[in-house]
Amino acid sequence: MSDTIKYLLDESRIPKAWYNIQADLPQPLPPVLHPGTGKPIGPDDLAPLFPMALIQQEVTTEREVEIPEPVREIYKQWRPTPLFRARRLEKALDTPAKIYYKYEGVSPAGSHKPNTAIPQAFYNKEAGIKRISTETGAGQWGSSLALAGAFFGLEIKVFMVRVSYNQKPYRRALMESYGATCTPSPSDETESGRAILAKDPNHPGSLGIAISEAVEVAAKNADTNYALGSVLNHVLLHQTVVGLEAMAQMEMAGDYPDVIVGCTGGGSNFAGLTFPFLGEQLRGGKKVRVVAVEPAACPSLTRGKYAYDFGDTAHLTPLVKMHTLGSAFTPPGFHAGGLRYHGMAPLVSHLKELGLIEAVAYHQKTCFAAGVQLARSEGILAAPEANHAIRGAIDEALKCKEEGVSRTILFNLCGHGHFDMQAYIDYFADKLVDQHYDEQELAMALAGLPSVSA
Amino acid sequence: MSDTIKYLLDESRIPKAWYNIQADLPQPLPPVLHPGTGKPIGPDDLAPLFPMALIQQEVTTEREVEIPEPVREIYKQWRPTPLFRARRLEKALDTPAKIYYKYEGVSPAGSHKPNTAIPQAFYNKEAGIKRISTETGAGQWGSSLALAGAFFGLEIKVFMVRVSYNQKPYRRALMESYGATCTPSPSDETESGRAILAKDPNHPGSLGIAISEAVEVAAKNADTNYALGSVLNHVLLHQTVVGLEAMAQMEMAGDYPDVIVGCTGGGSNFAGLTFPFLGEQLRGGKKVRVVAVEPAACPSLTRGKYAYDFGDTAHLTPLVKMHTLGSAFTPPGFHAGGLRYHGMAPLVSHLKELGLIEAVAYHQKTCFAAGVQLARSEGILAAPEANHAIRGAIDEALKCKEEGVSRTILFNLCGHGHFDMQAYIDYFADKLVDQHYDEQELAMALAGLPSVSA
Repeated sequence: MSDTIKYLLDESRIPKAWYNIQADLPQPLPPVLHPGTGKPIGPDDLAPLFPMALIQQEVTTEREVEIPEPVREIYKQWRPTPLFRARRLEKALDTPAKIYYKYEGVSPAGSHKPNTAIPQAFYNKEAGIKRISTETGAGQWGSSLALAGAFFGLEIKVFMVRVSYNQKPYRRALMESYGATCTPSPSDETESGRAILAKDPNHPGSLGIAISEAVEVAAKNADTNYALGSVLNHVLLHQTVVGLEAMAQMEMAGDYPDVIVGCTGGGSNFAGLTFPFLGEQLRGGKKVRVVAVEPAACPSLTRGKYAYDFGDTAHLTPLVKMHTLGSAFTPPGFHAGGLRYHGMAPLVSHLKELGLIEAVAYHQKTCFAAGVQLARSEGILAAPEANHAIRGAIDEALKCKEEGVSRTILFNLCGHGHFDMQAYIDYFADKLVDQHYDEQELAMALAGLPSVSA
Repeated sequence: MSDTIKYLLDESRIPKAWYNIQADLPQPLPPVLHPGTGKPIGPDDLAPLFPMALIQQEVTTEREVEIPEPVREIYKQWRPTPLFRARRLEKALDTPAKIYYKYEGVSPAGSHKPNTAIPQAFYNKEAGIKRISTETGAGQWGSSLALAGAFFGLEIKVFMVRVSYNQKPYRRALMESYGATCTPSPSDETESGRAILAKDPNHPGSLGIAISEAVEVAAKNADTNYALGSVLNHVLLHQTVVGLEAMAQMEMAGDYPDVIVGCTGGGSNFAGLTFPFLGEQLRGGKKVRVVAVEPAACPSLTRGKYAYDFGDTAHLTPLVKMHTLGSAFTPPGFHAGGLRYHGMAPLVSHLKELGLIEAVAYHQKTCFAAGVQLARSEGILAAPEANHAIRGAIDEALKCKEEGVSRTILFNLCGHGHFDMQAYIDYFADKLVDQHYDEQELAMALAGLPSVSA
């Protein structure tokens, strides 16, 4: 047991460029469409919301996109993140498998989200923007953008779903500690918010409404832009620092993954770890099985339709082709708030269609059981989202045991659970329920998908 | 701004031995006395509570105490911890000072406490012990020992002060996630607990009562030992991994501290960082100013008496010579629960008497202001305890600015504040009060100190 368990890179090894999988795709990504015309949108359509640098990153097919030096400088605060060999977990499982995990919880905000919050803030600052508006559900994304705002001197305006705002005061306090303004949504600060409140003054809010409010604020104020924490190509691009580092660390370990596992909500932490390895394979390098683990209560990859759909419930966004449960679908209120999204990142969806990745869905209780097993053997208590990846990785390791073969498994432990302790309290009190979505609601939401000829 | 900001050591650089300052003291530590006889106690007096290895570490004057390999193996999970150069904070303060901080919040339990919890669990396991009982207030120590128990397969029984048990369910959930049993104290499981409950069934509990319960359980069960998270010599010894690593990291930075700042409650994180540097000085090496920062509402070093006193309110412990406010003193309920102790570690007290360290006391609001300033410039949101060290370090940096001189300041950021967000919520809502202790109560507590001739 005196072998290395932690693979660390010097900060000089922080990648100098993000990896863009669009350069290596066997078929290009379907275009993003304008909902009015049904025609592909251009950069100008997005200019009111995003700085041009990010719009360019959204569509570029260059393999490498240089990471600006000021971004790398801030990445140094916590990057390169450690890669662990989970020897105690392997022993507890009595498996011949080798299990590695990349740990993104060491960032100041506690997850992988700052990997994209920092460059998004940087490019906005460069473009002369003074303020960024965004939405947040559980608060992982909002607190990461708040951190980025503090570093770059940008005002951050977060619309937080009202029910979460009231139930999760700790994440909100973290955002405020970083100097961000956190407003419960629906609010009376926007037209969209006021319209909802006029009908129901006690509306609990939804991610869809919060997006509408954040987009409205950005669209109406020239000094304000909008930022999204997942789904979009440039967000997934920024997350590839995770996988690029992991490749170097697996090399340090003298190993290479046979299977890579990540949890998927919007798809960004999954893409961040897996895309560099998939790129290697697409360019003729080593093959790797890639498994996306999603919540059974919101199973876009395993039960959704690959179709054009809106990114939000209020239909303010362009149409993107993705695995979707329909923008009218409302997932049950399970604890992994970061995985409660009706759609999947277009790039992840595209790879699924091309047969390059697999997907599996788990209910939450078995994921919490896996998280507790990891905590007791490795010490790290993971976020409910990350528990899905842990479940997937443990099941792969148990499969190895059953088959009597050793495989190398790598998974992404994308964040810690320090702000999610109520979920663990409920789990130990046996109050967690494995919620099922309403089949009829799903059928209706899918039937209501916009019809697009493209 | 493209200089190094994070100094990382390879895991092979985890110290192989703890540093024992007792080897370099110009005068030996006064002996621990038996409260009944007034005579120095021997190892046998402590044997019902601690394994012999720890009792030996309590009194040894060997300079180096070897760290067992299984302990180093677990240290690898998060050690060596990073040393940061706080360049953004320096810039925000516009100071010529160079500010470095050692960050212990990267441990799975979020503070420096596992540095001693792991070896304590190891030595108990080696001694054939099945269970360890302990007390906890806010829960930093309890969760660290729970983690250590999970790693070594030991049952951990934590008596948690009832008012904290009810107010801080998240720390409790963390302990339970690691498999520990957490009991609100006073409980009906011990004689001491039942006696209190008989008088007041709704007694809110106190650290003193929780200690009594934990000690009673250990004393009455041959398979059970007791563990303490601070104050004792062996606990401070284990924490010196912090300072030993920091010395190597300062060398990497090509720098050496002029001033070292740490917060003090029982004294363990302070000792951990500063003792190796003080040892260097005591052996004729470079001199360093060492500043202990304590809460003004519980100021043992600045307002206490250097005298023999009990370690607990129930008078179950031996008598130790230390700076004390009297074991009958009850500090006000400020947020830095880890600093609410009536006494100071005998070793820290001894160094203060010898003039080798300074002490300063701050009220909590200015410490929270310092913590928020650090969060906005460095990203890390510190525990309320650590905010005291931040305040001290910032004030040293501002002094440099005033004097127009550059000094190198090093402080210990001993833990993150993820489980202390209510304190930040109160701070931002301007609900925090700078509580003063009762001068009359202090006078009475000091008047009631045991009279010992030694």
